[in-house]
Amino acid sequence: MPFQRMITLTTDFGLTEHYVGAMKGVIYSINPTAQLVEITNAVQSFDVLDGALAISQAYSYFPKDTVHVVVVDPGVGGTRRPIIARAGQYVFVAPDNGVLSLVYEREERVSVRHITSDHYFHHPVSNTFHGRDVFAPVAAYLSKGVDASKFGEEISDFVRFAAPRPKATGANAWKGIVLKTDKFGNLITNISPKDIPQIFDGSSSAFKITVGKAEITTLRSNYAEGVPGEMFAILGSSGFLEISTNKGAAARLAGAEKGSEVAVMIAS
Amino acid sequence: MPFQRMITLTTDFGLTEHYVGAMKGVIYSINPTAQLVEITNAVQSFDVLDGALAISQAYSYFPKDTVHVVVVDPGVGGTRRPIIARAGQYVFVAPDNGVLSLVYEREERVSVRHITSDHYFHHPVSNTFHGRDVFAPVAAYLSKGVDASKFGEEISDFVRFAAPRPKATGANAWKGIVLKTDKFGNLITNISPKDIPQIFDGSSSAFKITVGKAEITTLRSNYAEGVPGEMFAILGSSGFLEISTNKGAAARLAGAEKGSEVAVMIAS
Amino acid sequence: MPFQRMITLTTDFGLTEHYVGAMKGVIYSINPTAQLVEITNAVQSFDVLDGALAISQAYSYFPKDTVHVVVVDPGVGGTRRPIIARAGQYVFVAPDNGVLSLVYEREERVSVRHITSDHYFHHPVSNTFHGRDVFAPVAAYLSKGVDASKFGEEISDFVRFAAPRPKATGANAWKGIVLKTDKFGNLITNISPKDIPQIFDGSSSAFKITVGKAEITTLRSNYAEGVPGEMFAILGSSGFLEISTNKGAAARLAGAEKGSEVAVMIAS
Repeated sequence: MPFQRMITLTTDFGLTEHYVGAMKGVIYSINPTAQLVEITNAVQSFDVLDGALAISQAYSYFPKDTVHVVVVDPGVGGTRRPIIARAGQYVFVAPDNGVLSLVYEREERVSVRHITSDHYFHHPVSNTFHGRDVFAPVAAYLSKGVDASKFGEEISDFVRFAAPRPKATGANAWKGIVLKTDKFGNLITNISPKDIPQIFDGSSSAFKITVGKAEITTLRSNYAEGVPGEMFAILGSSGFLEISTNKGAAARLAGAEKGSEVAVMIAS
Repeated sequence: MPFQRMITLTTDFGLTEHYVGAMKGVIYSINPTAQLVEITNAVQSFDVLDGALAISQAYSYFPKDTVHVVVVDPGVGGTRRPIIARAGQYVFVAPDNGVLSLVYEREERVSVRHITSDHYFHHPVSNTFHGRDVFAPVAAYLSKGVDASKFGEEISDFVRFAAPRPKATGANAWKGIVLKTDKFGNLITNISPKDIPQIFDGSSSAFKITVGKAEITTLRSNYAEGVPGEMFAILGSSGFLEISTNKGAAARLAGAEKGSEVAVMIAS
Repeated sequence: MPFQRMITLTTDFGLTEHYVGAMKGVIYSINPTAQLVEITNAVQSFDVLDGALAISQAYSYFPKDTVHVVVVDPGVGGTRRPIIARAGQYVFVAPDNGVLSLVYEREERVSVRHITSDHYFHHPVSNTFHGRDVFAPVAAYLSKGVDASKFGEEISDFVRFAAPRPKATGANAWKGIVLKTDKFGNLITNISPKDIPQIFDGSSSAFKITVGKAEITTLRSNYAEGVPGEMFAILGSSGFLEISTNKGAAARLAGAEKGSEVAVMIAS
């Protein structure tokens, strides 16, 4: 068995066109025995933070040395650089627009290279689809064992943004935001137990969370504990506070969505 | 080549988040050579019957010994049990909430185990995502040849519900329901040829099927036989009566949807 | 390692039902080591041209001898023939309804066989789902090395339609159409550089493109060059003129969609 690394795809190319199919074809043409795994190709269009969230929640479950291809790339064809990042036990291929920021945040050892060796690209290189022409072929060659150093020089000025964090707005008050609404209608906030432990530790005095038109004062440990129609706070599987309801869409009940403000007050 | 069983996924986790990707990562980390196949990850949220329909229509086409992972799990983290079911030639990993009911109905030999050996789980085990933390790793170990008996004891009180069946409402009258509307807008009912053979056997006298605002009196053997705008009855590939139209969405034409009543009358 | 060809799927069966899963099961039951790749299963329902576009934009990126299964099949169960087409370096399995027309257009060497050897089918053969019962098993046997000649005789009267082409409507005026709107809201037209080189060659005098309520007079070489809210023309990765906007949906801004007329005028 030849040297093999798994390749994953996280993109905003969608499921209704040929885009992801063309990327797969390019990869298999270079490495016919590649093991290609889709994480999601339905990241919100142009939304670098949404892509950053998706890959940050999935990458670490894969085998060591997996090559994660992450393409949310509104700057394609312009001046933004294509990069290979080594972060912890994984390798990432992506545009240098911050889409790996939440990975960088979680890993101590990060090194990034600017991909410049264009003989690895699929030619002719379009100006609008580097997923197919740059990122897919580079990932395929990496999966065959070509060393990252062959693709370009190390850089230190790569783009990284800070994830939006909740802010204290008073002695016992904070403001966060809804990072995303998932398929079930759960409102995933940017608030984690280390930000406001009083919500989660069971020892807490009363809390009130306001999001959209909803006021939440109950913490549940699983969805089925929720009484019909009730919205509650819950520690979600992503490590963030979520606002949910039992067998329903909290987003619709609360009239809230991605970007909505989340206000938290703790009784003193 | 080591012992291998194929693993399939049927879930309501959707395509827009990292959920299914995280499950895949957990599986490949345990069994890097697993052959993982998606049946559908777009089961309607929280809808155990919809999941039961999906797996019941697909499982038997797969190779013997395939491990089918079926996760529609609104009770996650509560008291419902995780199970491994051996049914006919296949193995299923699922919550014990009835999502395998339509499989049990089709197979004579069924044995079910309560999964309790939590050293096979992905730790820490969240309260809200057992797809990633319980069902995925158990499936991965099964695919590597770990015997089902290692995961827990056999149980006999597993949950099963009866599929909704059409009812006679008179000498020549029945009531059924629409089980689901598919992507094409076909209305898939719960009526099969053995329920009302007179619709299908060609020897029949006239019939009238009422669903939504539509009255259907024609049986077609394929879609292209339908004249433009006509709604007709047809024996669908799932073995059920469907209400369809040629190159259009019967659901929209009839103003009907999942759960709509289907009334059948046969001329005496 | 036995003889293996990769198999791809391009269908309109959607992601919410078991249809694609059942096809996969049939393929793996015949060839458990098949390498199965989804191009897209979300072709617009019944839309043969949409399917033709999808496969024509993806097939050539795959390894030589790949078996491409293309099922957009509103005539299923009727008189249309199932076919195997050899076109260039690839093999296609599809209904003979023109869905391969844009592949035929791109390849010089095309030979087509009518599939009649029904012992290769999955029995019983339904009248409504030949994806599962005819095309999937034929592709699986092809992937195992069964020769195309075993499935039926060569035919020369296979169905092919001409792709819609822009028409000159005056000395410096043309009319084209929007072939499709992609997930990003880009309006992909049927106009290529060889149809109206003046738009693309940089040497051009002014042009005006009218689509929906939008008038476009600017050519951009990548999306990020677009100023906020501006719609512009761009040479897309499919080789066609696209109307786009930077980080937004041109389709919505222009009030245009698939089938909308695209009028082009070049200043003389």
